[in-house]
Amino acid sequence: MSPDITSMLATIRHLPEVIRWQDDSLFLLDQTQLPLTTNLEEQRSVEDVWQAIYQLKVRGAPAIGVAAAYGLCVAIRDHQDLSLPDFYTLLEEKAAYLDSARPTAVNLGWALRRMMAVAEQNKSKCVTSRQVYQILVTEAQAIHHEDIALCDGMGEQGKPLIQDGMGVLTHCNAGALATAGIGTATAPMYKAHADGVKFRVYADETRPLLQGARLTSWELQQSGLDVTLITDNMSAHLMSQGLIDMVIVGTDRVAANGDVANKIGTMAVAILAKYFNIPFYVACPSSTIDMATATGAEIPIEEREKDEVIHFGARQTGPSDVKVRNPAFDVTPNELVAGIITETEILRPPFAQSLAAFSSQK
Amino acid sequence: MSPDITSMLATIRHLPEVIRWQDDSLFLLDQTQLPLTTNLEEQRSVEDVWQAIYQLKVRGAPAIGVAAAYGLCVAIRDHQDLSLPDFYTLLEEKAAYLDSARPTAVNLGWALRRMMAVAEQNKSKCVTSRQVYQILVTEAQAIHHEDIALCDGMGEQGKPLIQDGMGVLTHCNAGALATAGIGTATAPMYKAHADGVKFRVYADETRPLLQGARLTSWELQQSGLDVTLITDNMSAHLMSQGLIDMVIVGTDRVAANGDVANKIGTMAVAILAKYFNIPFYVACPSSTIDMATATGAEIPIEEREKDEVIHFGARQTGPSDVKVRNPAFDVTPNELVAGIITETEILRPPFAQSLAAFSSQK
Repeated sequence: MSPDITSMLATIRHLPEVIRWQDDSLFLLDQTQLPLTTNLEEQRSVEDVWQAIYQLKVRGAPAIGVAAAYGLCVAIRDHQDLSLPDFYTLLEEKAAYLDSARPTAVNLGWALRRMMAVAEQNKSKCVTSRQVYQILVTEAQAIHHEDIALCDGMGEQGKPLIQDGMGVLTHCNAGALATAGIGTATAPMYKAHADGVKFRVYADETRPLLQGARLTSWELQQSGLDVTLITDNMSAHLMSQGLIDMVIVGTDRVAANGDVANKIGTMAVAILAKYFNIPFYVACPSSTIDMATATGAEIPIEEREKDEVIHFGARQTGPSDVKVRNPAFDVTPNELVAGIITETEILRPPFAQSLAAFSSQK
Repeated sequence: MSPDITSMLATIRHLPEVIRWQDDSLFLLDQTQLPLTTNLEEQRSVEDVWQAIYQLKVRGAPAIGVAAAYGLCVAIRDHQDLSLPDFYTLLEEKAAYLDSARPTAVNLGWALRRMMAVAEQNKSKCVTSRQVYQILVTEAQAIHHEDIALCDGMGEQGKPLIQDGMGVLTHCNAGALATAGIGTATAPMYKAHADGVKFRVYADETRPLLQGARLTSWELQQSGLDVTLITDNMSAHLMSQGLIDMVIVGTDRVAANGDVANKIGTMAVAILAKYFNIPFYVACPSSTIDMATATGAEIPIEEREKDEVIHFGARQTGPSDVKVRNPAFDVTPNELVAGIITETEILRPPFAQSLAAFSSQK
């Protein structure tokens, strides 16, 4: 990680380092081993990076984008003695290869297209492959910096919502581990914590893949926040006891009417919050707002494999031949959303109007 | 199991046998091994029965009561040659021992007190210890039969609620495995299924101890019902898709105002059901209605150990030193309850009135 990035993150104590670029080498935190092992693995080849993305060692849309951009640098690093035409051929081949690691990850393709566009723009200006490589490293670092800055912006915008004595509930991991920075949903928490605000965080474990237990509770605890892990079905009880004052979650896509697609279970949290009059916030960079999607009904819900539900870790918990539903996401209706925290402002209902106005400024 | 009990259950195909008394021997299904192994274990000594209750091999208030009554028979079975005074001394000692297996299980103490009361009533009438033993076996069988009949009654009362094409959601295991009969919440499902009604059941897995995954989905599937297992955080999505038409759960205690204590997560299901205008029913024998408890606020919520939340089986899922909340129960406010299905009628709101009238008839 470059010194300026390190200093940008320095205000947050013990924030886990997810992605490091150092002396032309890429290191990725292996998130599949969390919370038991913290292993910042060197990615020695583009094949290593492909596997890291495919195996979810690095996950979260923003983090995948940054990892892929650096991954392309790793792919060409040892071939800077090639002729420019051969170098560009290799570049295209490796970008296509990396893009195949997780076809549904929007940021993967986005980052690779951005890297290739920069390479194309500089094709006539560069004399050596070495120059192209340096330009691409600089671009990957720019993507990295921008992601950190977006997280920072969401943190600044959302921070005033968190007051002394509050309990804040979150679901899944929209944290530092999902980004290169301080996360999306967690950004206001890290900022408020850095400012000395005393509050409690409750992390839903988030079945079936347990991102809340394995990732969110771990990263918040590492950074010294007061975090309590609960199972997904406990939040209503805690709300009824007055322990939760607000909810902040991330999102995979916001529709033009403010409907919010996010990890399965998010809608339940939003409905419970409504019942107990607790405000429910969504944090995301403006790029996540998809004005081309009119409502949440248009968002396809991925159905994942049965084994995730009938197993818990290595242990089988349900009958092998039982029917299972395993939707990976749900869509929270806009009427349940108190605000959408972006990097520049908090959008408020009615969302059809506020999202349209916000998007027209971009 | 005696022939008449077997015939009472015969209408329900493949209903798992939880408790069997045969030729002066007690057999209990080891529920800790479900769903992978179906093992009806002979209880060779009173120590075996104590361990079975303590280790949750047999669980569910009604089933524990029946097991304890038979357990007392096992304790004295091989001592029928004792003098009557020595036999009664042994009886009291073994009843106290069995009662210590799970101090908080209401039905455990209730069944043992009932057995001891019958022994006392017959003290002067019996000439031999063998006669006392036979009377106690008969009483244990009566407790067993009565539990089956209570379940049957709840099934008959609740059955008309389930119509062709419906989706029925349940939480935790208030099933045959928790009783000697066809369960409480599951009783209307088994009865409707036996009548040929075509409907779907959705079973919440019920973290942290996964009774829904391990027990409910298994027992319903064994009996040929159309059951689908989901994680606790998926029910809102299924409700939003129109897949769930009613909810039926069990309960540990109903307060005089209709507030319902049940397994953690029940309140969340009730709130979600309200949001989607889906009726939420509770099934329980009349003995579960506790008129001495004015409201749910008086019901203490047991907080269980941390390890249940950060582990499952051998696999650790959360940081070792993270804070955890683990309330075992929650209290569903009466305003969310559409009806309470008892063995003789379905009680409707306002519950303060209907429960008082119902209890005064008993």
